[in-house]
Amino acid sequence: MPLVVVGSVAIDHVETPQERRRNLLGGSATHFSYSASFFTSVRLVGVVGADWPDEHTQLLNSRGIDTSGLQVVPDGKTFSWTGRYHENMNDRDTLETQLNVLGTFDPVLPEDYRRAKYVFLGNDKPSNQLKVLSQVPGRRLAVADTMNLWIDTAREDLDHLLDQLDGLVLNDSEAKMLTGTENLVAAGHEVREMGPKFVVIKKGEHGAMFFSEHETYVLPAFPTARVIDPTGAGDSFAGGMMGYLAQQDSFDPETLKTALAYGILVASFNVEGFGLERMQEITRDDIEERMQDYHNMLSF
Amino acid sequence: MPLVVVGSVAIDHVETPQERRRNLLGGSATHFSYSASFFTSVRLVGVVGADWPDEHTQLLNSRGIDTSGLQVVPDGKTFSWTGRYHENMNDRDTLETQLNVLGTFDPVLPEDYRRAKYVFLGNDKPSNQLKVLSQVPGRRLAVADTMNLWIDTAREDLDHLLDQLDGLVLNDSEAKMLTGTENLVAAGHEVREMGPKFVVIKKGEHGAMFFSEHETYVLPAFPTARVIDPTGAGDSFAGGMMGYLAQQDSFDPETLKTALAYGILVASFNVEGFGLERMQEITRDDIEERMQDYHNMLSF
Repeated sequence: MPLVVVGSVAIDHVETPQERRRNLLGGSATHFSYSASFFTSVRLVGVVGADWPDEHTQLLNSRGIDTSGLQVVPDGKTFSWTGRYHENMNDRDTLETQLNVLGTFDPVLPEDYRRAKYVFLGNDKPSNQLKVLSQVPGRRLAVADTMNLWIDTAREDLDHLLDQLDGLVLNDSEAKMLTGTENLVAAGHEVREMGPKFVVIKKGEHGAMFFSEHETYVLPAFPTARVIDPTGAGDSFAGGMMGYLAQQDSFDPETLKTALAYGILVASFNVEGFGLERMQEITRDDIEERMQDYHNMLSF
Repeated sequence: MPLVVVGSVAIDHVETPQERRRNLLGGSATHFSYSASFFTSVRLVGVVGADWPDEHTQLLNSRGIDTSGLQVVPDGKTFSWTGRYHENMNDRDTLETQLNVLGTFDPVLPEDYRRAKYVFLGNDKPSNQLKVLSQVPGRRLAVADTMNLWIDTAREDLDHLLDQLDGLVLNDSEAKMLTGTENLVAAGHEVREMGPKFVVIKKGEHGAMFFSEHETYVLPAFPTARVIDPTGAGDSFAGGMMGYLAQQDSFDPETLKTALAYGILVASFNVEGFGLERMQEITRDDIEERMQDYHNMLSF
């Protein structure tokens, strides 16, 4: 089944302790789309400016990603993020954020996107995410990401959004912040009680936790010493997860757990290169091979 | 097979955000022994003072733990630790450490302990750990724990110890400190290259990682919202792991992975009560039941 994603499309500038790279193809919708494209057809909604290189669009199209929902603002500049990773490659400082055209982004879905059954709302202000939901009334599964900024500044809209979601994906610190609860298992269920039928807490190098009414589980990250650039890992995770669900056209408990594992594995490739560089080297076969290793790792 | 453990025996005073408890049965050898006793017969070596309550010894004996190696210093006082946990129940402050009789502890193994094949060296100064090793020349498997203090102050002895170990168990921050490497996968293998045939990195609520020449894997912690007192969780983990290895009298890769899982599960019970309180409520059947849940959690 086709999968619609609405989110940011960005030009990233990334510094790691080893290397500094400029003008990387970035953004939540980008990382998400690319990862999901290994599993299903993806329809992207986002906004860029006149500076957006056409080759980036071509790259996405080459993966079968429909970019007819990518708005181009002719007199605008693309959203840009500059960040520097610490030695541990987990913590990072945002050196600069230029919202540019993202600041006035009005997510409008092309007519043929509106029949989508699978929808992912990348991190954005909750009022925008709600606006997207209203355009896909026939959806079967809507999952969103969020961030500390909205928990802090748009709580009412966020609460309203949570009511309408099937699933929420957020990271560990956001889950603690949203609930005021330090224990992640308790926090996960508290978030779930705010509305979503299921909640996924991303723990970065420590994997991901899943919470539904009857299930609580955690799957570890795929262990790798080759962490080149963690930017977009969370979006890549969500893309792998949602891509698999859309491909299976199912979100029963068994499919959800497998989807979580695919998300973890796709994200483990994503961090092995800057931007989308490593992702461009792999095929679905590489993902399946790593899945076999992952299954072996968890078997005893 | 009998399992010898040498380590601290303590009186703990613990504060959590919920509760303050004094005079808990604590210490690395104690938590280790109790956990290992679900799997095999344990022979404990440690030291206490005249203040040591006989009922604590009786409790250990009731689990089949041989305490003939527990030295009692008639004019001494038992090692005591006072700590306070933060809201997150992971970080803690040591409020007071009274080394007392532990400061001059000379680990001497009773004659019948010296034929042991399975030996665990709880965290102690490396020179003491080396002294223990020299008393069990016929051992089949020697595994040790260590801590930041010895990495800082006794590096030469520690390096000498690492050369003679089959396995080392340490936590994530210690692994980073020992190697100067922030990526845990890389750090794990670097520690292994210092001598031990295998290395286990404990990640607390995030589980444990295993490193041998041909294997790298991670198993997640058992997710629980019921964290009452994390004191001794790492020793409990090591006790479950070593107890299972000694019971199986094997440490082939398959047995090691299962042992790691048992360590994780026993530790998950340990944190559900102050001191050893929760451990006194459970049986091997409870551990097996949780193992079934854990297997299910990791299957998809």
